[in-house]
Amino acid sequence: MKKKRVPSGVGPQTGKLWAGRFTERTHELVEAFTSSLAVDRRLYAHDIEGSIAHAKTLERARVLSRRETAAILRGLATVRAELDKGRFPFVPQDEDIHMAIERRLTELIGSVGGKLHTGRSRNDQVALDLRLYLRQELGRLIERATRLQQSLIGQARAHRDVAMPGYTHLQRAQPVLFAHHLLAYVEMLERDKGRLRDALTRTNVMPLGSGALAGSNYPVDRAYTAKLLGFPRVTENSLDAVSDRDCAVEALAALSLIMMHLSRLSEELVLWSSQEFRFVDLPDGFCTGSSMMPQKKNPDVPELVRGKTGRVYGHLLGLLTTLKGLPLSYNRDLQEDKEALFDALDTVSASVDVLAELLKGLMVNRKALAESVESGYLLATELADYLVTKGLPFRQAHAVTGRIVRACVEGDRDLRDLTVADLRTFSDRFQKDALAVITVDGALRRKAQVGGTAPQRVAARIREWERALR
Amino acid sequence: MKKKRVPSGVGPQTGKLWAGRFTERTHELVEAFTSSLAVDRRLYAHDIEGSIAHAKTLERARVLSRRETAAILRGLATVRAELDKGRFPFVPQDEDIHMAIERRLTELIGSVGGKLHTGRSRNDQVALDLRLYLRQELGRLIERATRLQQSLIGQARAHRDVAMPGYTHLQRAQPVLFAHHLLAYVEMLERDKGRLRDALTRTNVMPLGSGALAGSNYPVDRAYTAKLLGFPRVTENSLDAVSDRDCAVEALAALSLIMMHLSRLSEELVLWSSQEFRFVDLPDGFCTGSSMMPQKKNPDVPELVRGKTGRVYGHLLGLLTTLKGLPLSYNRDLQEDKEALFDALDTVSASVDVLAELLKGLMVNRKALAESVESGYLLATELADYLVTKGLPFRQAHAVTGRIVRACVEGDRDLRDLTVADLRTFSDRFQKDALAVITVDGALRRKAQVGGTAPQRVAARIREWERALR
Amino acid sequence: MKKKRVPSGVGPQTGKLWAGRFTERTHELVEAFTSSLAVDRRLYAHDIEGSIAHAKTLERARVLSRRETAAILRGLATVRAELDKGRFPFVPQDEDIHMAIERRLTELIGSVGGKLHTGRSRNDQVALDLRLYLRQELGRLIERATRLQQSLIGQARAHRDVAMPGYTHLQRAQPVLFAHHLLAYVEMLERDKGRLRDALTRTNVMPLGSGALAGSNYPVDRAYTAKLLGFPRVTENSLDAVSDRDCAVEALAALSLIMMHLSRLSEELVLWSSQEFRFVDLPDGFCTGSSMMPQKKNPDVPELVRGKTGRVYGHLLGLLTTLKGLPLSYNRDLQEDKEALFDALDTVSASVDVLAELLKGLMVNRKALAESVESGYLLATELADYLVTKGLPFRQAHAVTGRIVRACVEGDRDLRDLTVADLRTFSDRFQKDALAVITVDGALRRKAQVGGTAPQRVAARIREWERALR
Amino acid sequence: MKKKRVPSGVGPQTGKLWAGRFTERTHELVEAFTSSLAVDRRLYAHDIEGSIAHAKTLERARVLSRRETAAILRGLATVRAELDKGRFPFVPQDEDIHMAIERRLTELIGSVGGKLHTGRSRNDQVALDLRLYLRQELGRLIERATRLQQSLIGQARAHRDVAMPGYTHLQRAQPVLFAHHLLAYVEMLERDKGRLRDALTRTNVMPLGSGALAGSNYPVDRAYTAKLLGFPRVTENSLDAVSDRDCAVEALAALSLIMMHLSRLSEELVLWSSQEFRFVDLPDGFCTGSSMMPQKKNPDVPELVRGKTGRVYGHLLGLLTTLKGLPLSYNRDLQEDKEALFDALDTVSASVDVLAELLKGLMVNRKALAESVESGYLLATELADYLVTKGLPFRQAHAVTGRIVRACVEGDRDLRDLTVADLRTFSDRFQKDALAVITVDGALRRKAQVGGTAPQRVAARIREWERALR
Repeated sequence: MKKKRVPSGVGPQTGKLWAGRFTERTHELVEAFTSSLAVDRRLYAHDIEGSIAHAKTLERARVLSRRETAAILRGLATVRAELDKGRFPFVPQDEDIHMAIERRLTELIGSVGGKLHTGRSRNDQVALDLRLYLRQELGRLIERATRLQQSLIGQARAHRDVAMPGYTHLQRAQPVLFAHHLLAYVEMLERDKGRLRDALTRTNVMPLGSGALAGSNYPVDRAYTAKLLGFPRVTENSLDAVSDRDCAVEALAALSLIMMHLSRLSEELVLWSSQEFRFVDLPDGFCTGSSMMPQKKNPDVPELVRGKTGRVYGHLLGLLTTLKGLPLSYNRDLQEDKEALFDALDTVSASVDVLAELLKGLMVNRKALAESVESGYLLATELADYLVTKGLPFRQAHAVTGRIVRACVEGDRDLRDLTVADLRTFSDRFQKDALAVITVDGALRRKAQVGGTAPQRVAARIREWERALR
Repeated sequence: MKKKRVPSGVGPQTGKLWAGRFTERTHELVEAFTSSLAVDRRLYAHDIEGSIAHAKTLERARVLSRRETAAILRGLATVRAELDKGRFPFVPQDEDIHMAIERRLTELIGSVGGKLHTGRSRNDQVALDLRLYLRQELGRLIERATRLQQSLIGQARAHRDVAMPGYTHLQRAQPVLFAHHLLAYVEMLERDKGRLRDALTRTNVMPLGSGALAGSNYPVDRAYTAKLLGFPRVTENSLDAVSDRDCAVEALAALSLIMMHLSRLSEELVLWSSQEFRFVDLPDGFCTGSSMMPQKKNPDVPELVRGKTGRVYGHLLGLLTTLKGLPLSYNRDLQEDKEALFDALDTVSASVDVLAELLKGLMVNRKALAESVESGYLLATELADYLVTKGLPFRQAHAVTGRIVRACVEGDRDLRDLTVADLRTFSDRFQKDALAVITVDGALRRKAQVGGTAPQRVAARIREWERALR
Repeated sequence: MKKKRVPSGVGPQTGKLWAGRFTERTHELVEAFTSSLAVDRRLYAHDIEGSIAHAKTLERARVLSRRETAAILRGLATVRAELDKGRFPFVPQDEDIHMAIERRLTELIGSVGGKLHTGRSRNDQVALDLRLYLRQELGRLIERATRLQQSLIGQARAHRDVAMPGYTHLQRAQPVLFAHHLLAYVEMLERDKGRLRDALTRTNVMPLGSGALAGSNYPVDRAYTAKLLGFPRVTENSLDAVSDRDCAVEALAALSLIMMHLSRLSEELVLWSSQEFRFVDLPDGFCTGSSMMPQKKNPDVPELVRGKTGRVYGHLLGLLTTLKGLPLSYNRDLQEDKEALFDALDTVSASVDVLAELLKGLMVNRKALAESVESGYLLATELADYLVTKGLPFRQAHAVTGRIVRACVEGDRDLRDLTVADLRTFSDRFQKDALAVITVDGALRRKAQVGGTAPQRVAARIREWERALR
Repeated sequence: MKKKRVPSGVGPQTGKLWAGRFTERTHELVEAFTSSLAVDRRLYAHDIEGSIAHAKTLERARVLSRRETAAILRGLATVRAELDKGRFPFVPQDEDIHMAIERRLTELIGSVGGKLHTGRSRNDQVALDLRLYLRQELGRLIERATRLQQSLIGQARAHRDVAMPGYTHLQRAQPVLFAHHLLAYVEMLERDKGRLRDALTRTNVMPLGSGALAGSNYPVDRAYTAKLLGFPRVTENSLDAVSDRDCAVEALAALSLIMMHLSRLSEELVLWSSQEFRFVDLPDGFCTGSSMMPQKKNPDVPELVRGKTGRVYGHLLGLLTTLKGLPLSYNRDLQEDKEALFDALDTVSASVDVLAELLKGLMVNRKALAESVESGYLLATELADYLVTKGLPFRQAHAVTGRIVRACVEGDRDLRDLTVADLRTFSDRFQKDALAVITVDGALRRKAQVGGTAPQRVAARIREWERALR
């Protein structure tokens, strides 16, 4: 059997740490096509944190000596400092951040650097890095969402006495408190936080020690690695551990729901700041003008948030598609997880932050709201419920009131223009007290069960939220 | 003010319970376009269950008398029986199951039927029905997933001694136990069940009493309604309660992840039953033939499961898109939630069930697996790790082994064809013990940490699962 | 070699035409899971049309005698009549419409029916049926889209003198003609029709004769089959022909774009019919009421069209996902093409039709539009362009005008409230003619280049469209 | 009316060209959130090309003097040179490439630079730039796809005599030529090119002159602008022109279909290079190794192409979602079009190029293919068709052959192991000539109709392609 003479430790592809088996250099198109460095370099701190824990675990398993471990830890500290300061000497062969760091480590501390990867594969290493990063970002996003809730609650408290038309089908429906409307978004964000927390729990599981797919040939104490890295649990199946991107998909689904909620809030901000609604003014600092039309003050921020919803949905669908039909275990397709996830996290984080800030400066047009709530037959349901209190079954009361409204529409009148006498031409159950009952205030106050828009309810809910989010 | 003379209780649109305000009949194109009856009639039992609880709550709030409540409950029992038996007399004006039931109730018990909708809107009613239905289906799906886990574990136990090539990049990588491979899917399904449970917790919240959007004008005790219907919590904001479809989206995301996992399992079943792999035979009863090629026995079931993955992803994306940018509160767009959700639940339920049954009959080709595991350089990593135990840093050991493999490839030999002398031409660290170390059995046994493929580990994990899923 | 004694012509699975090779009956879960009959039965007429052409082609190739062919054609006519009248006797073993028809044919005409499938596979047969169906539906949809264009043009003509605020960012921007706004959708639909035509051209290719994957063993004249069925071309590669679902995806992409356009039109109809805009009233027959709020008249039709956009996008994504990563040639995953495509075609067809009808009855509120166009600083750009005519570079003219608007906003005034003296405090280039220039009419008339909103331009474009669509 | 004293030509936001109307600076979060410069700077050459044509059009309309035009053109040439050389002095206020260029132009040539934007808005400007860019890239992609076709045809020609098993359901089905299989992808790519050409036709329409939404106040000759820029047509409705992103969506749909095709080819390359199939070897330069397993040579390139399919689908869905429900005309959401489109174009271009190169170096394992085609009952259909030639109806011939295969499977024999006597135990129609007929060569040769796999057909098709693609 003939042995090719090649310099010890390297294949024909200088710089590729896996080159031994290969006889050709990587094609330059392939270098560009397969490199993930531009994307995964943001994982460097987590990669080094993981390597430190791995080195300590190898020491504990007596695979590394104390001296070797110390050298590796010192080297990693240097690499980390270089990366922190933007002075890390990347070379063209660095296909990803993991190999770049190992290469540099070995340059710094010599061949002992080559021992760091003992019992480890990029497959479990990258699974670890992704979980460390995602864990951090999910935690931060929960805090961001809380700040957005606080902005909403701040505005709710400041306008807790302001009524507005509530809408269904974008038609005026019934009066509600402006604060009640804002608190609807606080509820949505609280569910979002619940989903982020659940995703975080399932992310917070330690995969290192799964090797390339089958586990490690060394007696590593994975619980110890987990403890060093602050993971409460370890993965229980090595094949699954390196193939699994559930936590990324679950995060993307939770992020998509957040964007869905923000897109609804944004749609309302766009509507409310139109000349037709005039409910609010956005702060100048959150709007931009037109290159051509000098009068324009455009709600760019909510428009962009609404538009970016598509981007995040796209990432969710993209990753789900990528994962469809892949056999176990690791396949290179999985490299596509990170760009989608990173961009979605960035997008949602920025959207939450910018809306939280915008809402603080939102100016509410009390006059326009007060006028709006007075027209549009918003009190028709009160009228029907009045008839119910006078003994008419609701379905008949609804029909009578419907006819009253029809007559008003045809006569271009509003409900408040009607006299008791007018009402009595439709039903003799109307009494003198009818007009006193059919008011915006009455309508609000009556909706006093849990979840209703009555002022005392909404005030109490504001207090509960303030306490809970403190 | 002139009053149009129309018969009491109905608008010009006979049969529409909201017709009072309208002057034209619904256009026939619109009847067809807006009707949801074909889709939402499957909610009838939940709708009636909700109406019973609503009637009791109205009685408690003294909106209905005891006698009225009793009449309504009797009437609803009759309606339910008619629907159960397929004898419910639908009429063309029935635009959805909710209005159909109320209409029929009033036919059966007279105008008191018109009192049932007091303090309620279709908006909170449909939100309730959806949650009741989804809660039930999520619960059932968790049980179904457990049965699929049990099928996998059954096969794992039956073949717990069988080795197979583990793959990365669909290239043979390292030996693993066939049971270990199957257990990877058990892990995935356990995460899926966790997501279903979390979705169920967020689904299990009672929205009735939110009215159309603002709450109810009646002093209904929503906690009482919730108790009657077995909900631990009530929704806390009426606008949110009628606008919210988070639980449907969250369920669709969880369902998409299940399909993603099933698509991977299906891909493997298709691969494994090919003439190239021959790892398994699918039972005849789960395959179909060709209309033209007499020899064909096709793995239709896993192919269809894999194909249906797209359908479920599509439903997730469809609903997310529908919800994007909707202002509060209810909009008719939301009607599109049910068809997507129902079809996804049906698809995933059927896919889980059919795979659970198929797996029970799966025949494992021990001979083919045994042959496969013997070739393909599966033990190269063992060789490298051997050199590590002899003091070579892993990175150099990897390079040496890579060159050995290259030489074998070029000479068309396998690792087991090498003698110690052959090995020593690559590194003088190879000793006589090398050949004893480099065996499939040794490779498996060494991977004994948590999550590894060592036989004792896998056996323990099988026992743990059997206990946990009992 | 031992031969199992089974009755001639059938396997143990009575009724399965491919059962010879099988030893077990199809599992009942699998019958349900794999059946496509509920979906593909709508293809029956195309299936029979294709079979007639196939029989004639076999006769021409002397595979069938004239008498056999005649018997088959007579039998197919009977089958067709049974299906047309809803009297076709389906049996539980009918897994799809193709096998059902062949089974029934053989019942009717005896064993010669078993000759129809000579040289054909379900793979090329189903590819043919799909193309025949899609070709028909794309053609019909083009006609439907034309009718929607005509409705838009009808309204444009009826209101060709009505100005409205044009919007960017949902902020009032510049005056435009209402007719110009409607014609924007006519342009979109014309592009849609172009895409449908292109999809139709690529659909209109004849796949029969590709067999299961490799071609046919018989000297069939495929050009003759194509001629019989009205196809201008035949497919050129048998493997591709049975694997290809491009035409379905391309159609779904074109359908998604149509829904995107309709969702924008629908959004505008919802906005315009709100109490805030009041630009239009939808006909009563296209709205529905509320079960609880008697005054409501909701724009359900445009809301549902907007909501159904998600469904069509979902189908596009679903089919793309299903096709991803499938090896050649036919895989059972492809069965999932039809339900998505059929539902999307149905949804888009119904949406186009219902909007075409709704638009005919749309009532335009000329008064509200006239008022709206008078406020909101819509003429600021005219002011800037006035300054340009007086020699100021546009960018400076823009800045000056911006400051005028700012002063107006702060003083709660509108542009029309300004005198020439007021204007001259901002720039001494303002002359007496300024006020004459800054009018809605002037603004409209000046935009007279191709594509602009000047009345004469718009009128000409209406005439062009009327001529083109006649 | 009081006038704020601010320096001429700028608002309080120094550097914002639209700042006149604003009283606050843009918030820094908003600067970051809304900036598109990082994305749209790749449009700079097209932006300048468009500005040159706009300046010439303004000159022709006598809005600019000859001297002013000359100054602007000289200035733009300088700007272009600065950008080409990477020396353009960006400043933080540059929110997009369009404003950056105008700002720089004015720095270079003074206030006449402020005249360039006369009669133009960023809305029509950005619509123009996008179309110029997309037109270029679609053209290039068509050429790229042609090169990939040529690679496929090169391999087809080199192996035009090599048979392989054709598959349906990933089960061996019938013999086909390897060249025939490759040519299936050539067909797909030809359809892809057709779609790209159609998208290009609809892209190739000139929008400038549409202004912000309503057209231009200047008598610009849009046909002249179009001619300068090489557009055959101009847009016909200004509102549509600035709102429309159809060409981007249509391109993304065409790109998604290309990726779908490439994902199928990639799946096959992964399968074929597995140890189970061994049909091909990928060139070393297109594979990478494992950090842990020294023997690995992984098909990373096809895996990544397959994985990136999800990314492109995601962009399509993302943009469709972004556009859903937007009212006319321009909304800031539209800014999200470019990143999706650019990344999809980059991804598809790179994927096509790298596969074209990889295929050139593909090594085909003739021995493995020859062995594979000999087993797996690939000739069963030939057997059935043999019986048809002896007068048996096909359906019965299929059943007889099915039973023969079943007997072989049970006896672990292949069809070629059977004697005529064996065959006659199943049907006495088998004659001595049966064995001569049932050969791979015969099977191939018989499929001689258009699109079939017969060697003479495939050779002819190769020649046709070579001629057509020259």
